[in-house]
Amino acid sequence: MKRYVIAAAFLLPVLAISCKQPAPAEETKEASPRKIKNIIFMVGDGMGTTQIYAGLTANKGSLNLERFKCIGFSRTNSASNYMTESAAGATAFAIGQKTYNGAIGVDSAGNPQPTILEIAKQHGLSTGIVVTTDITDATPATFAAHQKQREMQAEIAADYIKSDVDVLIGGGREHFDQRKDGRNLLTEFTQKGYQVKYTTADAEQVKQGKLVALIKEERVAVRGDQLARTTNAALQLLQQNKKGFFLVVEGSKIDDGGHANDLQFVTEEVIDFDKAIKAALDYAEKDGETLVIVTADHETGGLTIAEGDLKTGKISGKFSTDDHTGVMVPVFAYGPGAEAFMGIYHNNTIFRKFMEALKF
Amino acid sequence: MKRYVIAAAFLLPVLAISCKQPAPAEETKEASPRKIKNIIFMVGDGMGTTQIYAGLTANKGSLNLERFKCIGFSRTNSASNYMTESAAGATAFAIGQKTYNGAIGVDSAGNPQPTILEIAKQHGLSTGIVVTTDITDATPATFAAHQKQREMQAEIAADYIKSDVDVLIGGGREHFDQRKDGRNLLTEFTQKGYQVKYTTADAEQVKQGKLVALIKEERVAVRGDQLARTTNAALQLLQQNKKGFFLVVEGSKIDDGGHANDLQFVTEEVIDFDKAIKAALDYAEKDGETLVIVTADHETGGLTIAEGDLKTGKISGKFSTDDHTGVMVPVFAYGPGAEAFMGIYHNNTIFRKFMEALKF
Repeated sequence: MKRYVIAAAFLLPVLAISCKQPAPAEETKEASPRKIKNIIFMVGDGMGTTQIYAGLTANKGSLNLERFKCIGFSRTNSASNYMTESAAGATAFAIGQKTYNGAIGVDSAGNPQPTILEIAKQHGLSTGIVVTTDITDATPATFAAHQKQREMQAEIAADYIKSDVDVLIGGGREHFDQRKDGRNLLTEFTQKGYQVKYTTADAEQVKQGKLVALIKEERVAVRGDQLARTTNAALQLLQQNKKGFFLVVEGSKIDDGGHANDLQFVTEEVIDFDKAIKAALDYAEKDGETLVIVTADHETGGLTIAEGDLKTGKISGKFSTDDHTGVMVPVFAYGPGAEAFMGIYHNNTIFRKFMEALKF
Repeated sequence: MKRYVIAAAFLLPVLAISCKQPAPAEETKEASPRKIKNIIFMVGDGMGTTQIYAGLTANKGSLNLERFKCIGFSRTNSASNYMTESAAGATAFAIGQKTYNGAIGVDSAGNPQPTILEIAKQHGLSTGIVVTTDITDATPATFAAHQKQREMQAEIAADYIKSDVDVLIGGGREHFDQRKDGRNLLTEFTQKGYQVKYTTADAEQVKQGKLVALIKEERVAVRGDQLARTTNAALQLLQQNKKGFFLVVEGSKIDDGGHANDLQFVTEEVIDFDKAIKAALDYAEKDGETLVIVTADHETGGLTIAEGDLKTGKISGKFSTDDHTGVMVPVFAYGPGAEAFMGIYHNNTIFRKFMEALKF
């Protein structure tokens, strides 16, 4: 990691130009590094190079991802497997260690390790998780829960009560209020001062404080621009903390499209995720102290593109598996500190890059 | 292109750190931009993200490509097709315009346009082409020949006589000395002052002047480290020009492995190409004024990885086609000016980036 430390000291004021827009000459001459106050970490579940280009094609030749200049590749293998799954893949981001497939915020020995969201919280930042799947699913869970297997969704839901995450938006209400142990976690959330909502529109009305929004899970055709709207809603709440925030956003269902070997499903979800990316980039452009990282936990489906038309958005492709594949996945970075995410590296080093960016 | 011009003015002295190794603090404070004297442009024919990761896996977890920090993506569609082929793909690099599939150094209307090698020559640089396929094949041909169809290999061979390229190394001798028109182009090359050789070892003995080496085409198992050796031989000759050089190196047969749906063939060729990349990077590290770009014209075979083992190098995969696919391909950049190759852009803009790098 020495390389990044050395680079960060000299590069921040100037490199920001290439990973942001061109800046006036005066700005580039500032001596002090740009501050990184906030991080928006966006995970396109199952989104490899081909899913991105399929989405770009279906979107008639453009994506907000093209606004990024700093690009890297993440090597996704887990500690146990060449092909990771979402739990081990996201735990690597969350705790900085590769672990076994199925692990939620625990290391290879099954021991809970502090997550980047927990560490951010300890340093006074606000935190949030916004997804389009059950909030108890593997990817979001790894940032706030510690369980030995991803299937333990009741336990994961209970971990959220202890997590102190400020904004939680996703599906999976049944894991909170229809539990075998008789607890009603939504009541418990309310007792802890959270506002509990059940629709995007209601979540958007919350103007301050803590929020849990458990929204019915739907595909894009039904849920519309829910992800971009809830990302914006989370940003409006989290930005009230002057110390900064760490927000995790997941385009959860790109992975579902891959498992279903349904290319239209994949491209709809990539384009939907890209709208949330627009929300994040627009925020970061205005703010100037926000680092935005977009990557994936792994590729899903072994997708290749057979034919496409960049004018009409027509596309056809083939899937080689209904499971994940082991190929490295792109990382896109924008804002102060983005240059640390260039190059080819292992998924767990992304945690360390976050720690260095926030000077933790 | 305005963005790159603005960026280049401020970024060169400092950004070199992230796209090279960390440099001492003093060096980063220099006011004048680093000079770009030489460019080594390396094309892995058919090498998409998956081919690279398959090669990395087969090579037991590492590649010299990991030495790059600056990464971009090239959108490969041609003017006529979503899926390009090598002629249109490489012509986009060579002349800066997307053209129709099959075109060799000509625009969409079939008109010859000056290539980056011809322009470099006009500015006093030395030029070279080193490949592992026939030197008259599509990719190398686009940099020095102008023909309406890639199949016109006799005409392409004759174009090389007029091209004034200083170093030509590859296969395809029959197109030069067994011609229907009765010409012996090898005699003509000798008359023009070229040294004509037929083996890697003989090519390596040439210590100055112009060189044509037409080496029998073989697979890696037979040809061994020919590509790395001939890349080094070309560098030794070309570096004698104090004004600089532009060298094109192609890992030609990655594409053949894809067309053959033969994964071992693909990974052998990626690893072999990576050894030539090592030769280029080692040269550029020492030299300090050399920009190295590695990319592909397109992906071949619709490759996905089924399973792999990073310790043993064992790997299995699937191909979805025996043709090319349209997916965007990675670009890796090292050295002064490397930052201009970050982001997502069309293949033909790589020509303009070269022009700006060399201040043409």
